[in-house]
Amino acid sequence: MATSRESTVPYEIPADGAAPVRAGIPEHGRVPKYYWLKARIAPLLEELGEGEPLPTERELALRYEVARETVRQALRELLLEGRLRRAGRGTVVAGPKLEQPLALASYTEGVRKQGRVPGRTLIGLSRHACPGDLARELGIAPGDSIWHLERVLFADDERVGLESTYIAVARVPDLSRDFDPDSSFYGYLRERLGLRFGDADERLETVLATPREALLIGTPPALPMLLIHRLSRDPAGLPLERVRALYRGDRFSFSVHLHG
Amino acid sequence: MATSRESTVPYEIPADGAAPVRAGIPEHGRVPKYYWLKARIAPLLEELGEGEPLPTERELALRYEVARETVRQALRELLLEGRLRRAGRGTVVAGPKLEQPLALASYTEGVRKQGRVPGRTLIGLSRHACPGDLARELGIAPGDSIWHLERVLFADDERVGLESTYIAVARVPDLSRDFDPDSSFYGYLRERLGLRFGDADERLETVLATPREALLIGTPPALPMLLIHRLSRDPAGLPLERVRALYRGDRFSFSVHLHG
Repeated sequence: MATSRESTVPYEIPADGAAPVRAGIPEHGRVPKYYWLKARIAPLLEELGEGEPLPTERELALRYEVARETVRQALRELLLEGRLRRAGRGTVVAGPKLEQPLALASYTEGVRKQGRVPGRTLIGLSRHACPGDLARELGIAPGDSIWHLERVLFADDERVGLESTYIAVARVPDLSRDFDPDSSFYGYLRERLGLRFGDADERLETVLATPREALLIGTPPALPMLLIHRLSRDPAGLPLERVRALYRGDRFSFSVHLHG
Repeated sequence: MATSRESTVPYEIPADGAAPVRAGIPEHGRVPKYYWLKARIAPLLEELGEGEPLPTERELALRYEVARETVRQALRELLLEGRLRRAGRGTVVAGPKLEQPLALASYTEGVRKQGRVPGRTLIGLSRHACPGDLARELGIAPGDSIWHLERVLFADDERVGLESTYIAVARVPDLSRDFDPDSSFYGYLRERLGLRFGDADERLETVLATPREALLIGTPPALPMLLIHRLSRDPAGLPLERVRALYRGDRFSFSVHLHG
């Protein structure tokens, strides 16, 4: 029951999980100008709706009576946060982040469940002598042959990630012959080879895109990315593959269901 | 078995999960100068070891024959990535990121398991009328009383995160009287009230620190952070608490074990 001691909640938790605007105001009450502007632009984005173009920097500077540089700083943060996105030569209101489950399922299945069209483009499939650290993880001898499969990940027609898979050649000897690199690798393992997953260890962190990654994914350099390290095993507990998957931090969130 | 077709692996996966250096080189082969320098400084950090001071900007500029601005850009990225950290007025080599399990356990337990000393400092404990969206999530009526507990999280003596917990006053009526805000909230629920957790839904994303958050955590503004949204339930499946936990992206990674 509400009592007279109560006030309204200072930090509303928006349904989309975005950082609440009022939580951005330091206790000392001095709000940086660009942040004040960001808080003004946020409801404007709601009004405009997904895919709609934003007014120009010039128009925004005039409307809110701030310097162009202030507008640029506010827009830069809204872009990094995925509230805005570049479209052609302009800037439009971005849709919500894709929410991928952390599960023993492929990227393909996760994206499809959200009504998006998953896609991949091959960067390279190459065969190498396995270095020591990776060999230990994969349970093979250093120098044994491994495949390195590197692909750019798409959602609809947008480049959203970059995935490197390392797997022993002994596990999938004909990978370079009978795997279509534009298809699901997990689908291939399952349907072609009857390989199943038992369990996996994943670790998530945020990193900055390297120049090469930014180029391949088409993001601004130094965009915060979500990096997932995965080591998966078959039902017998033997290591199967090592994955390094990089996702645009402005386009993805990851969900997990935890049991007590 | 290695064959003569094989070369060495182009992207070594460092044990610490850091982005491999050579993966930063775009296919067109043009490496930005600051990135070239970053690749040179990385092994230097290894040599120096955790906690050791870095040479000054001036010394680095002389040693690698680059402009001071190039040094600054390289160091800025190494700081954002958590390879370096500020200590007093200087910059030192940072330790590895803390690896927190995504589990129905408290921050306290996770940090303790890594041999660090967890700590918390109260920002505020306040009572509010619950807004509609949050009430729906918590399974209470809009306007019902909720607590908002906000604390800065510490590991050893370092501020590393900011946690907001929202819980119905009906669940923990005496929170403001008998909870020590410097102690574990989960410990309180368990030991004082006999409340247990059944399951939880979590969602992770990367966000930029707001000016207020940066001030409270003591980070540079716009540092990439990991934000975890949690809704936990008791063993009967009734919502228990809503949490918004923000962790320094340069100090934390999160791990999860997945089953098939």
